[in-house]
Amino acid sequence: MKSKLYHGTAWYPELWEEEVRRQDLLLMKEAGINLVRMGEFVWSVLEPEEGRIDAGPFAEYIAELHKHGIDTIMCTPTATPPVWLTHGHPERLFVDRDGHVMGHGSRQHVCTNNPYFRERAALLAGHLGRRLGGLPGLVAWQLDNEFKSHVAECMCGTCRTLWHEWLERRYGTVAQLNEAWGTGVWSHTYQRFDQVPQPVATPFLHNSSLQTMYRLFQAEQIAEFADEQAAILRRYSLAPVTHNSSVAFHLDNEQLFRGLDFAAYDTYASQANMHAYTLNCDLWRNLKPGKDFWVMETSPSYAGSLQSYAVPHPDGYVAAEAVAAYALGAGAFCYWLWRQQRSGSEQPHGSVLSAWGEPALGYDQVLLASQARLAIEPVMLATRPMQAEVAITYSDRTKAYLATEPHRKLNYRSLLGDFYKRILDMGIHRDLVPEGGALDGYKLLFTPFVHYLSPEFLAKALAFTEAGGIWIAGPLTGGRTAEHTLHTDAALGALEHAAGVKTKFVYPMDGTGSIGTAFGLSAPLSLWSAVFEPLPGGASVIGEITEGRTPGLAFLTEQPYGRGAVVMLGSLPAGEDGDALLRALIDHYAQRAGVTLRTDAGAGTLVCPRRGEVDEVWTLVNMDGRGGAVTLPRPARDALSGAAVPAGRFTLAAYEYRLLQL
Amino acid sequence: MKSKLYHGTAWYPELWEEEVRRQDLLLMKEAGINLVRMGEFVWSVLEPEEGRIDAGPFAEYIAELHKHGIDTIMCTPTATPPVWLTHGHPERLFVDRDGHVMGHGSRQHVCTNNPYFRERAALLAGHLGRRLGGLPGLVAWQLDNEFKSHVAECMCGTCRTLWHEWLERRYGTVAQLNEAWGTGVWSHTYQRFDQVPQPVATPFLHNSSLQTMYRLFQAEQIAEFADEQAAILRRYSLAPVTHNSSVAFHLDNEQLFRGLDFAAYDTYASQANMHAYTLNCDLWRNLKPGKDFWVMETSPSYAGSLQSYAVPHPDGYVAAEAVAAYALGAGAFCYWLWRQQRSGSEQPHGSVLSAWGEPALGYDQVLLASQARLAIEPVMLATRPMQAEVAITYSDRTKAYLATEPHRKLNYRSLLGDFYKRILDMGIHRDLVPEGGALDGYKLLFTPFVHYLSPEFLAKALAFTEAGGIWIAGPLTGGRTAEHTLHTDAALGALEHAAGVKTKFVYPMDGTGSIGTAFGLSAPLSLWSAVFEPLPGGASVIGEITEGRTPGLAFLTEQPYGRGAVVMLGSLPAGEDGDALLRALIDHYAQRAGVTLRTDAGAGTLVCPRRGEVDEVWTLVNMDGRGGAVTLPRPARDALSGAAVPAGRFTLAAYEYRLLQL
Amino acid sequence: MKSKLYHGTAWYPELWEEEVRRQDLLLMKEAGINLVRMGEFVWSVLEPEEGRIDAGPFAEYIAELHKHGIDTIMCTPTATPPVWLTHGHPERLFVDRDGHVMGHGSRQHVCTNNPYFRERAALLAGHLGRRLGGLPGLVAWQLDNEFKSHVAECMCGTCRTLWHEWLERRYGTVAQLNEAWGTGVWSHTYQRFDQVPQPVATPFLHNSSLQTMYRLFQAEQIAEFADEQAAILRRYSLAPVTHNSSVAFHLDNEQLFRGLDFAAYDTYASQANMHAYTLNCDLWRNLKPGKDFWVMETSPSYAGSLQSYAVPHPDGYVAAEAVAAYALGAGAFCYWLWRQQRSGSEQPHGSVLSAWGEPALGYDQVLLASQARLAIEPVMLATRPMQAEVAITYSDRTKAYLATEPHRKLNYRSLLGDFYKRILDMGIHRDLVPEGGALDGYKLLFTPFVHYLSPEFLAKALAFTEAGGIWIAGPLTGGRTAEHTLHTDAALGALEHAAGVKTKFVYPMDGTGSIGTAFGLSAPLSLWSAVFEPLPGGASVIGEITEGRTPGLAFLTEQPYGRGAVVMLGSLPAGEDGDALLRALIDHYAQRAGVTLRTDAGAGTLVCPRRGEVDEVWTLVNMDGRGGAVTLPRPARDALSGAAVPAGRFTLAAYEYRLLQL
Repeated sequence: MKSKLYHGTAWYPELWEEEVRRQDLLLMKEAGINLVRMGEFVWSVLEPEEGRIDAGPFAEYIAELHKHGIDTIMCTPTATPPVWLTHGHPERLFVDRDGHVMGHGSRQHVCTNNPYFRERAALLAGHLGRRLGGLPGLVAWQLDNEFKSHVAECMCGTCRTLWHEWLERRYGTVAQLNEAWGTGVWSHTYQRFDQVPQPVATPFLHNSSLQTMYRLFQAEQIAEFADEQAAILRRYSLAPVTHNSSVAFHLDNEQLFRGLDFAAYDTYASQANMHAYTLNCDLWRNLKPGKDFWVMETSPSYAGSLQSYAVPHPDGYVAAEAVAAYALGAGAFCYWLWRQQRSGSEQPHGSVLSAWGEPALGYDQVLLASQARLAIEPVMLATRPMQAEVAITYSDRTKAYLATEPHRKLNYRSLLGDFYKRILDMGIHRDLVPEGGALDGYKLLFTPFVHYLSPEFLAKALAFTEAGGIWIAGPLTGGRTAEHTLHTDAALGALEHAAGVKTKFVYPMDGTGSIGTAFGLSAPLSLWSAVFEPLPGGASVIGEITEGRTPGLAFLTEQPYGRGAVVMLGSLPAGEDGDALLRALIDHYAQRAGVTLRTDAGAGTLVCPRRGEVDEVWTLVNMDGRGGAVTLPRPARDALSGAAVPAGRFTLAAYEYRLLQL
Repeated sequence: MKSKLYHGTAWYPELWEEEVRRQDLLLMKEAGINLVRMGEFVWSVLEPEEGRIDAGPFAEYIAELHKHGIDTIMCTPTATPPVWLTHGHPERLFVDRDGHVMGHGSRQHVCTNNPYFRERAALLAGHLGRRLGGLPGLVAWQLDNEFKSHVAECMCGTCRTLWHEWLERRYGTVAQLNEAWGTGVWSHTYQRFDQVPQPVATPFLHNSSLQTMYRLFQAEQIAEFADEQAAILRRYSLAPVTHNSSVAFHLDNEQLFRGLDFAAYDTYASQANMHAYTLNCDLWRNLKPGKDFWVMETSPSYAGSLQSYAVPHPDGYVAAEAVAAYALGAGAFCYWLWRQQRSGSEQPHGSVLSAWGEPALGYDQVLLASQARLAIEPVMLATRPMQAEVAITYSDRTKAYLATEPHRKLNYRSLLGDFYKRILDMGIHRDLVPEGGALDGYKLLFTPFVHYLSPEFLAKALAFTEAGGIWIAGPLTGGRTAEHTLHTDAALGALEHAAGVKTKFVYPMDGTGSIGTAFGLSAPLSLWSAVFEPLPGGASVIGEITEGRTPGLAFLTEQPYGRGAVVMLGSLPAGEDGDALLRALIDHYAQRAGVTLRTDAGAGTLVCPRRGEVDEVWTLVNMDGRGGAVTLPRPARDALSGAAVPAGRFTLAAYEYRLLQL
Repeated sequence: MKSKLYHGTAWYPELWEEEVRRQDLLLMKEAGINLVRMGEFVWSVLEPEEGRIDAGPFAEYIAELHKHGIDTIMCTPTATPPVWLTHGHPERLFVDRDGHVMGHGSRQHVCTNNPYFRERAALLAGHLGRRLGGLPGLVAWQLDNEFKSHVAECMCGTCRTLWHEWLERRYGTVAQLNEAWGTGVWSHTYQRFDQVPQPVATPFLHNSSLQTMYRLFQAEQIAEFADEQAAILRRYSLAPVTHNSSVAFHLDNEQLFRGLDFAAYDTYASQANMHAYTLNCDLWRNLKPGKDFWVMETSPSYAGSLQSYAVPHPDGYVAAEAVAAYALGAGAFCYWLWRQQRSGSEQPHGSVLSAWGEPALGYDQVLLASQARLAIEPVMLATRPMQAEVAITYSDRTKAYLATEPHRKLNYRSLLGDFYKRILDMGIHRDLVPEGGALDGYKLLFTPFVHYLSPEFLAKALAFTEAGGIWIAGPLTGGRTAEHTLHTDAALGALEHAAGVKTKFVYPMDGTGSIGTAFGLSAPLSLWSAVFEPLPGGASVIGEITEGRTPGLAFLTEQPYGRGAVVMLGSLPAGEDGDALLRALIDHYAQRAGVTLRTDAGAGTLVCPRRGEVDEVWTLVNMDGRGGAVTLPRPARDALSGAAVPAGRFTLAAYEYRLLQL
């Protein structure tokens, strides 16, 4: 897969007549498309009646594509089971928290834990593997489509039984469960596992442990389904298996991708959320380290459905997205979709061609992206993204904890997105590192909003610190146990000792008029906050609370640890002053840690460093359409034209990109 | 029915003792009431036990009213089935989209498709027809009450069966349905009609065709029920049959009224929505052309219920409403209600008399309206409203399409209301013409927001154009097929060719910074928009896109067609600048089309032209309470006083009305 | 119970090991805790398996506490039934208006009318009474916990049957019910009691009488359950019985506490709602007249749950709350909770100790409150709160009527709270007197927002007036019958005659531009309003409507009645001008009535007058943290230091309190 950069698209040959398909192939060639994804919704075509399975037409499509020099990623179509699977079988359907039983007519309406569904899905995967797995041009598999994008946890009877089994495996005895969850509160105490409810309707809140464990249980189940399907495909095919996921779905991506071969995701961020676009690149590059990720779906213009739509991308933005993705580690950049749906609920979605076969709004953008892809391909294939010096912890598990305990509508994605954006805008090259990822080679690590800090993670972070790294933990980090209860030894458990502090109080700062001061700057403090007192001979106070309910205590401390340091950030400075204070903090510790992969390109212009056998190559790309500039630390050479580029100020036009060898 | 103007009221004699009823009759006489509507909620009185039906008391009420010179419109009481019809019979109840089964205790809780309900309703209608149909004073029938005002589509088992039958009738084979709906998308493909779900709970959106067809199916069913009931009444009675409908209900009024004898509606617009009040007059006048419509319910002061209320009408407004209605084609102007309810959920609703028998806030307004009615009656009876030169297409079918596909919460009523209001405020006399209505005699036709343009309509509009009319189509017009899918030949199908344009792109303009320029004015463009390129030798570009994603293309074009022209408006100019641009457009084409029924009366003052055997009579009425003025094009005569009125500026005091012969 | 002031806390010994409990006792001593509440959620501990009941551990806890000088209030634990009570028994569960059946996992999920629940609850109460009722240190009982805080009316099958029985008891025959409710409207007429629905899903609104009667029925049922439980406890124990209630719950507190021995409530108002804190004191003091009330739960810092939190109290506020409560009649001031929950959904709730055993944010506040309690105890024990001269009617029954008929989201609590706040801020000592409370000794009575005015109340208020009191009735008062219908004799029924007025109109004033003028001030009028004309020789017009729909009529009238007067306030003056007008009204009538218990302490500083054998003692306490001042009418003596205090201006520091003998 490393012999080219893929420029792909989703294609639905099953929906159009042969003549249209033929045109599609020619037009794809013109548009520089070299990868097609298909099959993710074709169960009814593959198996129009129960038991009559035939993937023959798809074998032909793959062959045709191959003839035209286009590779294929084939999908299992389990996101849209046919009507015969569910008609008259309510027990196979997804049930939501309110007890509503979903029905045929959209997608994801089946419970993916239903044994009959699993059985049929296995048969299908087997057939697809056997029939298509060895075809030339078949380069990868995608499982299903956007797991858990429309639904969260299922409350059906199958899931109830599995839940009780899962609990028994996890806790052994119901007494252990009662102790772990603290069910004594409110007389929730269970006598048998089969009494433990799913988190359905109650007059007030469910126990936190029950809620969070149900989320973790369901995330495990979907990963198990993926593993099951992948194992079947692998029996027949050497092509790697992936899934088009997202940070927005109700999943633990780290767990899900453990069993898959490479990372892929869908993104429809509009230009106004440009940082959400790069966040994905910086995350998924590190979900399967050392392997290219694929941007499996993105719009050539705008997302849309019967009930919503996004703002169309401005002219030039799509090519900038493509260049940024490739430079940040993408092996493929794919559009959804090639030819606009003529029917169904996504008719309004942007596409490359219109339903009437003409270039759609995205068409010329695709041509621009194609040119860019061709231009940069040799350099990209000869280099790999450089590891960042600054890592930010990413945790889907934390999403589960914060979904259970949102305080006042806290949202992990937006909290982390804001935190990430600041570092991005400061011109620092960065990696989002999954909780389970390695920390070797980093200099500075941020771990914000990780409510439950596992012993494994703590040990790893301290080893990183021991070895000279600076670890900045918080805000909101470490205050919950694995079972989603409070620590009873110290507010933040084992973290406190390592950080050389005693947490005096944990309380919500919003509305209390609290002000924190550090680095000569003052700002309001926000969120549930932990406030500290250094242990004797322990941490230094870096940031002090000067006004509010607990003046004189610290919200920011630093403790030398091995050759590095543990920095505790107990609260979130807010507003413009808070932003300035956080920038000062990041700046201070980036300097302390010796971070050098950093430029003065302001927000809106990316610098993506890669390294090849001999060279370091920077991809510069302007994303905000206002043009940008960056100071080059040393003379460079344009990697495409070969022209010399002097050190110093280097400017880019709107959406312009340049590859510079330094 | 043409011998008088009705000034009527809803009356509930069944709720009050004889002495109160006697007073009511005397007070009605004093208030100039000459029409009473009754019976719409009396099923329990008519048939207190299943099978024991007796309309005797109502025969007496009709006789008593007749003795007092008051005519009666009698209702079938099917909106409120008695408890014996539903107690223990959940299968007869209405089921909403969330699966909630409605129950006794309000109204409209029964599925009007339930066969047992239909059977009992037929028996009732037969009894009422036989017993009351020939009584002197019985001048009309009203079916039910406000069909589908509280409920939309029913999801009960009866409806499911009827739905499958309806689909079979419409599509013949399930293969045709699959093709028409494009069910290949998301593997929705059906094997049998009985598998097609009602649009109930799914994780994401239903197929557009399924949703829209379910709406059309349900609209047909309620029209069928009305036809069934009307047919029974007509067996026994010559009195015409109507229904008190509204543009707000979940109905296709054009279809519903096809089987009824004259148009009637309820309206509770407050003065702040004055244009919604006149919109009704301008629409319903054309729903049964040549026949007076009835304002069946309006408040003498304010609407209200346990949970809401409107602002009371200011002093003088009600009489102005009455005059405007009569002048615009009403044969009756009726209040809801005569005597305030002493119980139930509408106790707070405004009325003529209070529950304690005293004049309520509306009483003196009713006296003013009565005086006005008496004064203008001879002139109104001797004239008919003049057909407008400007027509605006009205389509309840479009409401169904836009309910399925609201993009970003588009609402047909408010979109069309805004469009209508501009023309009203420009002093142009106008007709809202139902999709199926004739276009003969018009000069200028606007057809905005009609997502699906039927071949019949297109042919009619082109014939109108051929004959010299100017047809302005759009925005949002023509982009969907009958099946609620996209055209695959051209974005707007057959319309494009007639309009001499090629639609280059269709996309959402909001947020793209698009600016359109026409008639020397520029404005932001909004909504899903179609942008055009003239066909070779085709349309002229009238409005060009100057900024945004597709500069240089057209949003407004004009194509000569026969002796007239087809004007395409692909986008909606927005904001204050957009309003100015649209006014310029209307102005331009009104002049081009030779529109003369137009005055300089500003917003707030109506000019309603009527014509008799010899004369043209203008009714002028000030509706905003600020007084108004209009320039008379020629000398006139006051039709009531006989006084001469010179040409030129003519002023009206607050809420004043004048009838001028020109 | 009169030998001390209680300073208490909720304690959950069943959740912690022995060592922690031992520490708790020592720390409680240090913190000046002399009362512990426990047991309200311990059903699973008391009866881990059905039928195996043992309160032994709680006997030991009570004994241990007693040894440490701490008294106990023991709870019945019926708010949280164990899983064995409901597992497999959906018929025992609470059903909400939407038909959702609640489940185990939170609290209040059982229908408290379920006969099996009642049977098990009775067994428990019997066991607790026998086992603990005679123990030294057991000073009171609390029933359940916060009845109906999370749920409102239950719609289960048991409730349906009880509803039908209740209706039969109330109405005797179904014909009487039909007449009383006016079911003729909309053909709701019932043939048998068992046909009357519970107020569940309908397309539009239920009949007002049905809705309100269902609310009253349910309020009766929960009071009946409380009486049943209290009777059992009293068989074995002399300790008085109470409940921790609130004005926020779905209850009729007056009815509930009729059968209980003293009043108690929970409050979590933040400082920004200081008036909500004192409103409780001024109300509950009068719910069981002559007896101390208990503040059973309040936070030492902030309330919180997984999904919400309040702003922490500022430093010093809690002690001020304690002093205010004691001075206004509290016998106990108790915290929720002692030791932060380590698990469950209230982990984030503020506490005295943290889950890890350290002082929490509230700890030092508790110490301050303890000091204050000790200082003021002798004076408080030697005095009783003085009856106010000004009474404001409080009616939970009215809440039921306004819940049925909220017009535009009217909320009794906030309406009454605003009304109360004005009187509070004007420095007038006041009592909130329940509808059924005695009016002897008052000079001025306000009865606003009481939609249904019972004959009993009217007679009592007129007797009060007869004897010289001034009664100000309205706004919104008197317009509904007991059955929640309209009067048919006069808008406000019998009240009108007594008030010497005729109500001309009742209508919503909002949006009509209505202005009222009285006391030389003008203000906009709001709400559904009654507007008056004096009866011949009847009332004087005090406030006239000068603009709007009914100029010239009165919104404020005064009628001499016996030695007093009936003042009708038909509308609510709104905005800043309305506030000024209402202040003028209060001022005027307070002077007329000879109100003297009034100071010039502005908003934020309380003056709480008490009287002992010989002295009058004022407790002054600053609540807003800005300090305050009050003019002393005569020289006083500091009741704690004995120092002389001159007449005239007396100032208080932030949160300072002083006890002055006058």
